[in-house]
Amino acid sequence: MNRTPISKLGEFGLIRHLTQDLKNRQPSTCYGVGDDAAVLNHEGKRTLVTTDLLLEGIHFNLEYVPLRHLGYKAVAVNVSDICAMNGKATQITVGLGISSRFAIEDIEEFYAGVRAACEHYKIDLVGGDTCASMNGLMIAITCIGEAEEKDIVYRNGAKVNDLICVTGNLGSAYLGLQLLERELQVFRATQHDNLGKAEENNDAIHEKFEGREYLLERQLKPEARVDVIEALKKAGIKPTAMMDVSDGLSSELFHICSQSKVGCDIYEDKLPIDYQAAALAEEMNLNIVTCALNGGEDYELLFTCDIKDYEKLVPMDDVYIIGHVTETEYDSEHPEQPVNLRMIPRNGNPMPLTAQGWNAF
Amino acid sequence: MNRTPISKLGEFGLIRHLTQDLKNRQPSTCYGVGDDAAVLNHEGKRTLVTTDLLLEGIHFNLEYVPLRHLGYKAVAVNVSDICAMNGKATQITVGLGISSRFAIEDIEEFYAGVRAACEHYKIDLVGGDTCASMNGLMIAITCIGEAEEKDIVYRNGAKVNDLICVTGNLGSAYLGLQLLERELQVFRATQHDNLGKAEENNDAIHEKFEGREYLLERQLKPEARVDVIEALKKAGIKPTAMMDVSDGLSSELFHICSQSKVGCDIYEDKLPIDYQAAALAEEMNLNIVTCALNGGEDYELLFTCDIKDYEKLVPMDDVYIIGHVTETEYDSEHPEQPVNLRMIPRNGNPMPLTAQGWNAF
Repeated sequence: MNRTPISKLGEFGLIRHLTQDLKNRQPSTCYGVGDDAAVLNHEGKRTLVTTDLLLEGIHFNLEYVPLRHLGYKAVAVNVSDICAMNGKATQITVGLGISSRFAIEDIEEFYAGVRAACEHYKIDLVGGDTCASMNGLMIAITCIGEAEEKDIVYRNGAKVNDLICVTGNLGSAYLGLQLLERELQVFRATQHDNLGKAEENNDAIHEKFEGREYLLERQLKPEARVDVIEALKKAGIKPTAMMDVSDGLSSELFHICSQSKVGCDIYEDKLPIDYQAAALAEEMNLNIVTCALNGGEDYELLFTCDIKDYEKLVPMDDVYIIGHVTETEYDSEHPEQPVNLRMIPRNGNPMPLTAQGWNAF
Repeated sequence: MNRTPISKLGEFGLIRHLTQDLKNRQPSTCYGVGDDAAVLNHEGKRTLVTTDLLLEGIHFNLEYVPLRHLGYKAVAVNVSDICAMNGKATQITVGLGISSRFAIEDIEEFYAGVRAACEHYKIDLVGGDTCASMNGLMIAITCIGEAEEKDIVYRNGAKVNDLICVTGNLGSAYLGLQLLERELQVFRATQHDNLGKAEENNDAIHEKFEGREYLLERQLKPEARVDVIEALKKAGIKPTAMMDVSDGLSSELFHICSQSKVGCDIYEDKLPIDYQAAALAEEMNLNIVTCALNGGEDYELLFTCDIKDYEKLVPMDDVYIIGHVTETEYDSEHPEQPVNLRMIPRNGNPMPLTAQGWNAF
């Protein structure tokens, strides 16, 4: 592969190179890349804004994450946040801090993933910032979306007796990560100088992943559940509260229950789990329920619905009712105290859900 | 000073701690911090979006930049981008990557600066992302603004014979940086373990800065020229093209001329230069005109105006006419080729402006 130093193009040349043939797809994009700011027009709708930082060594490991996948995922996880408001993502900006070990071709790979995601989600890349970094790759994405005011779903609207639903399945992305980490350890023991060569590394250990492709895809190329947002709209369902599952189900339930001032009961036997995930958990001696409750990065949707929507929910593809909202004694002076969050295991004795966020500090 | 490890609060605790008493000031802020995305309503106006990355070791040095100033500056430079579109900044999101050497009190200091800037510019902090980093501090700010469609000023509207104007003065921020760097070298020679102790360091070398306070302020606490945007509106002037001076005058002229497909003549004796800057340049054996042309981070506004606005421009405070727009042969196949950018020195022989961006790669 060619390796062209970024200094050959310089900052402006690199930005031009990466953005010169961008096409805008959204009617709300009046002016995209190329000025001090992008110009948008959401014509009477509400504008939604969300932002995410992705840092090398914290959020991703380039030893096994290909740059193209990383670009795709960086966009997808932000689109997922807009979905979680019941909105429609329309634009993104991309900030990139790039250390000297990256060449132009690397950044092209990353941008190819960003563009593929923009195409898939029909959103426009309208701005950004590209600069050098001292150490590693840093990605800052801001996603803009739109929604009618009446359609927006917050975290704080869950009501007692509401149904609790989740899409897709849980724990697969976490198990995909465990698999990648395990094989990387094996690979490291036999190879040197493999940093940043995700493609070659992945080839070499490809056969170890046979039958587990789905778990890898869940970790490396998650999708925002735009399809579910559209299906809910079509079915005439407006959730009462919604989040995407990025930190893990327990953590997201904690946010919804804290903000809505309610508790919840969820049922172990209702948690949707993929068979590849269950098999790998068994092999790795991990508790699959713990993986489903606390594994992050599934980017599925967690939402609560009025019980009157039950008949509409049941026929929906890939939507699972896992429990219901309960009353709680909620102390607003101490929002950090766990509220009445419970899982009802198969044996029937309720157990409290431990609900703390991702703590990498 | 107390030093509380961030792990004591965790991610959610830290975010709550930093944002719990935020008050929204803008009518367009429907819902700010606390959900998957902020909700904005610019009611028929255009929405402007700009984003900036600020990375430790690249954009700032915590040996002499106090964290509070850094927080203020991070907001101000983004507000400046919205000003450069002739818009009004309304909201920001703040992404922070924090390494283990920072304590809660450090992040509070940073946020105190962010909040002071939000108050000064009357903008709302509506979201963000806070996470651990492997190395150093990373800041990603996205600023949202609004403008009537008819008021927006792009970089591409400069016409032959337009006047070229700049606000404030040029080169001061660069000379402030040179001063800080020089004194830091002296200080380093006599001290150890001074990393991240900007306040103490600044005290120790404070006397070296007497009479140069203005230059330090220009570097450490720049302001976005919201006042000029308001004054232009009041005077009934709409610039034909505009940018803020972040990389340096030459570089910004290059952008405006490239995008507008014009050339320019600017006059050495018209460049606004502060006397403290001139004196320090003399002392440090630097060419003050080079500093004014290529020194970055002034965050002044550079704009072009139709010549019919001349009478309105002359009485404006802190606005200087430095030249005019000229014709050029512009090759759109090679937008990276310098166009016909000239400075007319005091001796009268035009010299080409070298115009390349900041290249830290």
